Amino acid sequence: MEKQEQLEIVRHSCAHLVASAVQELYPQAKFGIGPVVENGFYYDIRFPRNITEEDMQKIEAEAKKMLAEGVGFERTEMSLAEALKFFADKKQDYKVMLLKDLKEKGTTKFSEKEKQEIGGSVEEVSIYQTGNFVDLCRGPHVKSAKEIGVFKLTKLAGAYWRGDSNNDQLQRIYGVCFNTQAELDEYLRLLEEAEKRDHRKIGAEQELFFFDERVGRGLTMWLPNGTIIRNEIEKLAIEKENQAGYVRVRTPHLAKEEMYLTSGHLPYYKDSMYPPMQMDDGVYYLKAMNCPHHHTIYNHKPRSYRDLPLRIAEYGECYRNELSGTLAGLLRVRCLAMNDAHIYCRKDQIKAEFKSVMKLTMGLFAIFGLKDYWFRLSKWSPDHLEKYVNEPKNWKYTQDVIREVLDEMKVKYVEADDEAAFYGPKVDVQFKSIVGREETMSTIQLDFVAKQRFNLNYTDESGADNNEVFVIHRAPLSTHERFMAFLIEQYAGVWPVWLSPVQVLFAPVATKHQEGAKMLAKELVDKGIRVEVDDADETVGNKVRKAAGRKIPYIIIVGDKELSGDPSASSGQEWMIRVRGEKDQVKMSKEKFVEKVLGEIKERKI
Amino acid sequence: MEKQEQLEIVRHSCAHLVASAVQELYPQAKFGIGPVVENGFYYDIRFPRNITEEDMQKIEAEAKKMLAEGVGFERTEMSLAEALKFFADKKQDYKVMLLKDLKEKGTTKFSEKEKQEIGGSVEEVSIYQTGNFVDLCRGPHVKSAKEIGVFKLTKLAGAYWRGDSNNDQLQRIYGVCFNTQAELDEYLRLLEEAEKRDHRKIGAEQELFFFDERVGRGLTMWLPNGTIIRNEIEKLAIEKENQAGYVRVRTPHLAKEEMYLTSGHLPYYKDSMYPPMQMDDGVYYLKAMNCPHHHTIYNHKPRSYRDLPLRIAEYGECYRNELSGTLAGLLRVRCLAMNDAHIYCRKDQIKAEFKSVMKLTMGLFAIFGLKDYWFRLSKWSPDHLEKYVNEPKNWKYTQDVIREVLDEMKVKYVEADDEAAFYGPKVDVQFKSIVGREETMSTIQLDFVAKQRFNLNYTDESGADNNEVFVIHRAPLSTHERFMAFLIEQYAGVWPVWLSPVQVLFAPVATKHQEGAKMLAKELVDKGIRVEVDDADETVGNKVRKAAGRKIPYIIIVGDKELSGDPSASSGQEWMIRVRGEKDQVKMSKEKFVEKVLGEIKERKI
Repeated sequence: MEKQEQLEIVRHSCAHLVASAVQELYPQAKFGIGPVVENGFYYDIRFPRNITEEDMQKIEAEAKKMLAEGVGFERTEMSLAEALKFFADKKQDYKVMLLKDLKEKGTTKFSEKEKQEIGGSVEEVSIYQTGNFVDLCRGPHVKSAKEIGVFKLTKLAGAYWRGDSNNDQLQRIYGVCFNTQAELDEYLRLLEEAEKRDHRKIGAEQELFFFDERVGRGLTMWLPNGTIIRNEIEKLAIEKENQAGYVRVRTPHLAKEEMYLTSGHLPYYKDSMYPPMQMDDGVYYLKAMNCPHHHTIYNHKPRSYRDLPLRIAEYGECYRNELSGTLAGLLRVRCLAMNDAHIYCRKDQIKAEFKSVMKLTMGLFAIFGLKDYWFRLSKWSPDHLEKYVNEPKNWKYTQDVIREVLDEMKVKYVEADDEAAFYGPKVDVQFKSIVGREETMSTIQLDFVAKQRFNLNYTDESGADNNEVFVIHRAPLSTHERFMAFLIEQYAGVWPVWLSPVQVLFAPVATKHQEGAKMLAKELVDKGIRVEVDDADETVGNKVRKAAGRKIPYIIIVGDKELSGDPSASSGQEWMIRVRGEKDQVKMSKEKFVEKVLGEIKERKI
Repeated sequence: MEKQEQLEIVRHSCAHLVASAVQELYPQAKFGIGPVVENGFYYDIRFPRNITEEDMQKIEAEAKKMLAEGVGFERTEMSLAEALKFFADKKQDYKVMLLKDLKEKGTTKFSEKEKQEIGGSVEEVSIYQTGNFVDLCRGPHVKSAKEIGVFKLTKLAGAYWRGDSNNDQLQRIYGVCFNTQAELDEYLRLLEEAEKRDHRKIGAEQELFFFDERVGRGLTMWLPNGTIIRNEIEKLAIEKENQAGYVRVRTPHLAKEEMYLTSGHLPYYKDSMYPPMQMDDGVYYLKAMNCPHHHTIYNHKPRSYRDLPLRIAEYGECYRNELSGTLAGLLRVRCLAMNDAHIYCRKDQIKAEFKSVMKLTMGLFAIFGLKDYWFRLSKWSPDHLEKYVNEPKNWKYTQDVIREVLDEMKVKYVEADDEAAFYGPKVDVQFKSIVGREETMSTIQLDFVAKQRFNLNYTDESGADNNEVFVIHRAPLSTHERFMAFLIEQYAGVWPVWLSPVQVLFAPVATKHQEGAKMLAKELVDKGIRVEVDDADETVGNKVRKAAGRKIPYIIIVGDKELSGDPSASSGQEWMIRVRGEKDQVKMSKEKFVEKVLGEIKERKI
């Protein structure tokens, strides 16, 4: 961890170094903020006129020169009043705004999300000087630029001051920074790999999905190929959930204002929700979560202890009013189809249910061949009682049983204090993607608050009303959108047979072989295999090349030999099969081949 | 047909008769309109104070007395000015409003939907006198009330004047009227049957679905049992559509204003759509139709003649802003899941595609055991060119090929002139429900207009752009909501095995048999059968009675005998099986029974 902290200091110092180079080249530049991000940093700057990528290269060269020279980082402290005057004199308007915020609100944070806080208190602030560049900053920094290692400026983007589109538009310079050239090279390799595997690129090539301006931003249009994959994933989830004793429901995508006042989404979460719709009987919202609908199903009749645990599942669609500018492929959308379920159980059932969800989750990941993940248990903090629902016994009990589950299952996990949700502890599943990005794929969230808000209860063995209904929210396969993006990247578009939109391609040699190929295709389709016949007016070599480019698992050329005799009695014949990823063709009878493919589909072979 | 017309005259006269009785009993009553409806009539009346069901019985008695007396129907004509004065003197405000409309607009219709138009023109109107009651009416009527046959007042409801909630609220008296007592009795029997089979009643009993005030009106909450049925129906449709060469897509439930300006839904259909939502990148609407999304998928890449016919399918959800007061169970909802698809084809492919849709549709109905239906071909009218898209050759050609299809398939059909949609001819599938109600279950609609509006085209064999893309809209299984309501009524809740939420129920005799029953259940579940074990603390007789009440197809009592020896090796044993609807139990080995049930599921036996 210390090493990571050191690297963050280096990256932060690198941001100052780059700003200093900007100051040198553009003395009129006005500086916003320059925080550390994953793998590097950025700096938001208002230039006298917008700079280009080319200009950015010049800035990089200048900063590298200063690095070689070993420019120093010098800390000074001054009173807030002095600092205000100092930055006002330098016409650094954004720094002045930050200082005014500090003076009025005691903080420069304008939202919970903002990580960086500039140095200082209402009494005194610290500033750092690097070359001619002076920045308001909490530090710490390196002593000399020589300590910075290697860096590279990677991207130029637009950014509003404080993320608000009503404010000035600045330019954001992104950079990456590592201790060694080898680390930077590895990072750049992964970046290149990520570009090759980009889900938007492959999604377009393979015709999986697209977005359309007239349909609207962040609303996925699933094409037939993407729908096949999506439906296969959904089928798998349903199958496993059925086996694990879930019941399924279908709920509308809307609910009335009253529902979200009960759930607490309104007013706190209003900005993230789609705008309200005034109907003749009240105000409606598109749902941001499935929980309120499922709680309503729980409540639709009196429940007894015999009904618990009750596991209500639905691939439910949720709507989020993201800013249109922040939407990015399938990774940030406005409508998400969530692999959702809610488990209603008694306190003494939490452990078994949590374990069962863990097993389900891990079983699903194994099917997709995903192994590089670990768990993170997010707990409350008795030191910050105000942040958490006041049920100390439940916090202690549930965190303990969850830890027991993690231990008994012998999985890799970390614990994080003071990271729980307001309403209960949770376990996140953390993935290291194939391109080195860490992401939370799914969450198993315990909830003590729903029982009060929705008055969830049951009749216990003694006939008494019991309100101690615990809810587990879980979505092992995340959302279709996110999971699909992840899988595309993971597989680089080379889908396992069971997920491949086309599993077998027949390439007829000439026009006269088309009818026969279609008959063979029909035979396989009737058995449950997805087949395509390429009847284009092209050479068979071209057809094979194109099908290989589409990563189709099996390609079979259909010519005189394959069709000799009665096609329907072609059972004895051997086919030559081009197997994806293998150099040599495989010789196999039709029967054997069909059996092999059906077997791979059934076992969901990777 | 003449008989039907005669009956309508009788029913209309009966409405006057009832109004006349009202006039007698409530001289201050103000009369709205009193049209003929299926099986009878209604009359909207404003009473000095609201009447009750009991009052309605008195009105019926009075009207029956007048019928027995053979009160006459006398026609007079007068100028519009005279009529205005006449009804104003009688303080018949609503009649005065109708006359003013006639004067100003030349019609008393206030919407396309309104069937009845009162008699007369701007010059002259006709009135009818029955007893002391005088009505503005086009006629014709019977000469004497003796011709009326038999009638019965059935229902009292609220109704706004002209259906507008800003207007006065009137009371609507519904009556049914037939030529003979036998006909009335048969009608009342069907009515009683309809009440027994009411989809709301059975839906609640069987826990199929419910509505919740906080979720909102007209938004179906599908419970686990209903979801099973819904999903089985969907699975069937998908299976048959796959076999028929459809591809599947998934599209968002929203689109931008621009989309609906292109499609023409805006502004014409705006009132039926959910209210707009203003987002940061434009105005969004919940979709009222799936077509625009599917057209967008058609257009997402250039199409060639090789791509046609392209059949794009989706169980897509559509939203309709119905007035909350008009919503009724599953029959009128605000969100509908439609068994939708759009077929894009060339003109010379229309016939084959239409035929294929007909076959698919009829095949699906056969699986559900539905036979009592016929087809209706709705055509344009060359006499009303203004109502139809101006492509006379296409109208002629397509109507002819559709008629050919209907003839070749030897189905029962009628033709209706001047009943087509603006954009093309259609075939409706008309059902006579088990309770005698005629309804349109599904529609096969041809569309010549989409190609212009959405600029649909393809590259033909010569390499030229061709805009002659015809679209077939089709939804054989209607919407989940409507079809489910129909099926519940049709089956009276006695679902075929493949649709039964629980297919087999095990009733353990005593507590000690519960574990064994659960093991047996698990065995069947793993084979794909839906099983429930009733482990309640009750007598086995009670369990059987309850399961029979739930219409579970197979009930098996599990006691010592069934569990003797090793339960997993119970193969040789004979089970006693209670088969739904059969008096005697059936003796069968476990293996035979499982095979039988799986067979019934697979064949979707009725």
